[in-house]
Amino acid sequence: MEAAAAPSRNVRVSAASPPSGRGEKSLPESRQVYMDYNATTPLEPEVIQAMTEAMREAWGNPSSPYPAGRKAKDIINAARKNLAKMIGGKPQDIIFTSGGTESNNLVIHSVVKHFHKIHTSERDTAEHHSPAEGATPHFVTCTVEHDSIRLPLEHLVKEHVAERNEVQSRGFPLLPRVLLLRAVTFVPVSKVNGQAEVDDILAAVRPTTCLVTIMLANNETGVIMPVPEISQRIKALNQRRAAAGLPLILLHTDAAQALGKTRVDVEDLGVDFLTIVGHKFYGPRIGALYVRGLGELTPLYPMLFGGGQERNFRPGTENTPMIAGLGKAAELVAENCEAYEAHMRDVRDYLEQRLLAEFDKKIHLNSQFPGTERLPNTCNFSIRGPQLQGRLVLAQCRTLLASVGAACHSDHGDRPSPVLLSCGIPFDVARNALRLSVGRSTTRAEVDLVVQDLKQAVARLEGQA
Amino acid sequence: MEAAAAPSRNVRVSAASPPSGRGEKSLPESRQVYMDYNATTPLEPEVIQAMTEAMREAWGNPSSPYPAGRKAKDIINAARKNLAKMIGGKPQDIIFTSGGTESNNLVIHSVVKHFHKIHTSERDTAEHHSPAEGATPHFVTCTVEHDSIRLPLEHLVKEHVAERNEVQSRGFPLLPRVLLLRAVTFVPVSKVNGQAEVDDILAAVRPTTCLVTIMLANNETGVIMPVPEISQRIKALNQRRAAAGLPLILLHTDAAQALGKTRVDVEDLGVDFLTIVGHKFYGPRIGALYVRGLGELTPLYPMLFGGGQERNFRPGTENTPMIAGLGKAAELVAENCEAYEAHMRDVRDYLEQRLLAEFDKKIHLNSQFPGTERLPNTCNFSIRGPQLQGRLVLAQCRTLLASVGAACHSDHGDRPSPVLLSCGIPFDVARNALRLSVGRSTTRAEVDLVVQDLKQAVARLEGQA
Repeated sequence: MEAAAAPSRNVRVSAASPPSGRGEKSLPESRQVYMDYNATTPLEPEVIQAMTEAMREAWGNPSSPYPAGRKAKDIINAARKNLAKMIGGKPQDIIFTSGGTESNNLVIHSVVKHFHKIHTSERDTAEHHSPAEGATPHFVTCTVEHDSIRLPLEHLVKEHVAERNEVQSRGFPLLPRVLLLRAVTFVPVSKVNGQAEVDDILAAVRPTTCLVTIMLANNETGVIMPVPEISQRIKALNQRRAAAGLPLILLHTDAAQALGKTRVDVEDLGVDFLTIVGHKFYGPRIGALYVRGLGELTPLYPMLFGGGQERNFRPGTENTPMIAGLGKAAELVAENCEAYEAHMRDVRDYLEQRLLAEFDKKIHLNSQFPGTERLPNTCNFSIRGPQLQGRLVLAQCRTLLASVGAACHSDHGDRPSPVLLSCGIPFDVARNALRLSVGRSTTRAEVDLVVQDLKQAVARLEGQA
Repeated sequence: MEAAAAPSRNVRVSAASPPSGRGEKSLPESRQVYMDYNATTPLEPEVIQAMTEAMREAWGNPSSPYPAGRKAKDIINAARKNLAKMIGGKPQDIIFTSGGTESNNLVIHSVVKHFHKIHTSERDTAEHHSPAEGATPHFVTCTVEHDSIRLPLEHLVKEHVAERNEVQSRGFPLLPRVLLLRAVTFVPVSKVNGQAEVDDILAAVRPTTCLVTIMLANNETGVIMPVPEISQRIKALNQRRAAAGLPLILLHTDAAQALGKTRVDVEDLGVDFLTIVGHKFYGPRIGALYVRGLGELTPLYPMLFGGGQERNFRPGTENTPMIAGLGKAAELVAENCEAYEAHMRDVRDYLEQRLLAEFDKKIHLNSQFPGTERLPNTCNFSIRGPQLQGRLVLAQCRTLLASVGAACHSDHGDRPSPVLLSCGIPFDVARNALRLSVGRSTTRAEVDLVVQDLKQAVARLEGQA
């Protein structure tokens, strides 16, 4: 029933896997099944159509005042409305970016700038805090974030250490190293439920905390983080902080993996910033950033300076065709998210049943935590056995296209996923992990093929052992 | 003859000007002619095809190790080779960006970071300069650069002023304001030839100068700047600076307007950085940055941190379809640039002849400077007369789609272009300026239509006077 509700296309097989790729083009075994929709998704045909139309008919410069420019501008504004609708926000609170990496970096950049601006003006009027304490903004995040959150924050730590050395060499007294290293707190996720826990996040808050950034759903486990609860607690805390003259804490969530798979509403989430990534929901490889009350309630400091596009928050001639495609992809999500979700959940649950039925106690489901919600499409599991490391199993598969973790870590060799280790998965189990993520058009029949494929792959590996 | 050499497509009329745009769809007068190719260009059909194919068949994540990912990676690497070929550089020296604005900002960001890194390590070993002097990197540019160069540099000046205030409030002695305001020198262009002159640029160099950035061709006048001469002089100067322990000066050129219109070769230019913008040469709205000996000879410090793509210099899942399109557009330029140039020059020169023939002494050609090379497609002119401000004339035109200057300044009202004023064009003439820029498929017949249109527009305006 759910399968019927989902779009019945068949792009994934021909597109993801040119049969010649493994030199078996004439054999029936060469049919491949893509189950790596968390790495990226194909473009919906309607999205390709919107982009192609825009390429042909709306190539004018959106800043040009004549019709070709106005048409492009109209397309961009319509897309903005569709994005806003998808997340329950206002169109004027959406700005387009080149992708999720830029959106995430922009939030961190902006909050640092804002902190320094407030700090400078406060110090000019009153001496609330010691300069050492006040000079370093503090961030709270968790240990399973995407690299586009983790790495800019680690970079900040490095820069603060460098700044400390600079200040010291100018004759300032030694600043306590621990203060500087505390520029970021990486809260561990719970080994019981895979979530960043609300109490842990609140406990990490300091007087200088300016941003809490917690992903909406993890890309490897699919675990959904308790963002609404974090937001409620921060809201209450911010009232007390305002009274005490402390900076307010802003809340960001990277919704890259959640959008298109489960309902996302910025009012329910209560976030100030939300990252949108097109290619995770059958859209193009650009992104957007939601900023609550952009420029009024919530500050945004641009990283780029130029021609004034996106109200100067993100200059650069607008990428009309990509924006048109992103708008169409958002429109589809806004209209069909429940159906997508129900279909993916059905197929994923069927996959897990079949895995348990075929492999019985050899299977460890790495992302089923009691009482924790997770994405409807993600199945992270390990097949126990000394020769069954994830990469070896995938290499033996003839049908399945999947991954052992985040695509951008595909060169990390056989080290087990740090995300799974953080979630308390034992080393030997984590080393064997496979991440399968299904899509809008994955079928139960494909699941059967994949499970069969895995069975044969395991038999080959164990026969070799 | 030249017209025959150019591709004979007819996208510009239907695409740039939906006839309904002016409510005259059934009249023959409603045929419109796009002459704003410096604002943006349509996509070549081959570019659209390359993008559409990549959207359908190479949507895999380029970091995924299975065939769908490898195919995307292959497309990206092929595009990189085509870009390198277009500019006579090495593929490994090209990184893809979201566009020209990002490329330009990235160069400035990178040079600042590098200066501070060198400054810090030098100060740790020896005291070459006073801290006040050494702490502020100095940039040389000219007064007619695009906003994506001017504004990030002006932002730097503001930040240095803020930093000065900060340092002073920490009890440092007053730094000379002039030094800080000298973070950037905007060299005026010559009123005789419209160029940033080599001697002026060299005269602006200081011990702390770390970057000279001069556009290759101006977007409003089409004037080509003497980048090879600047490069030779800086190379000689750098030898003396190295001996004196001064930082080497890097050279950047924003080639946005030159590519696809005239031959661009990084060896002839001798630049360390070169900005590439797809939508100015019939490609998509992304860009690239050439960096000579990326990471070895020339430093590049990323603005974004994330999944490691583009060797960590520019992370974010690669936009395969856009990159495929950019590669195809570059391939077309590499193969056909001479033919494009000859055709555009023929049509543009014919336009100027016709303007002079029709308007005689009322015409002032704003971009014909004696002895100065300019782009083959750009014609900046004014029709003299008290009621003939550029914007008024364009509003009366029924055929011509053009602009009064840069598209991103389209909201600047009736103020004359600062670029033209910098070039010595008198205020009253500059106020009447129109920028017409022809493309690969503009015809002499279209020029005739446009000149006729202008004549009627002027007659209507003068009749009203």
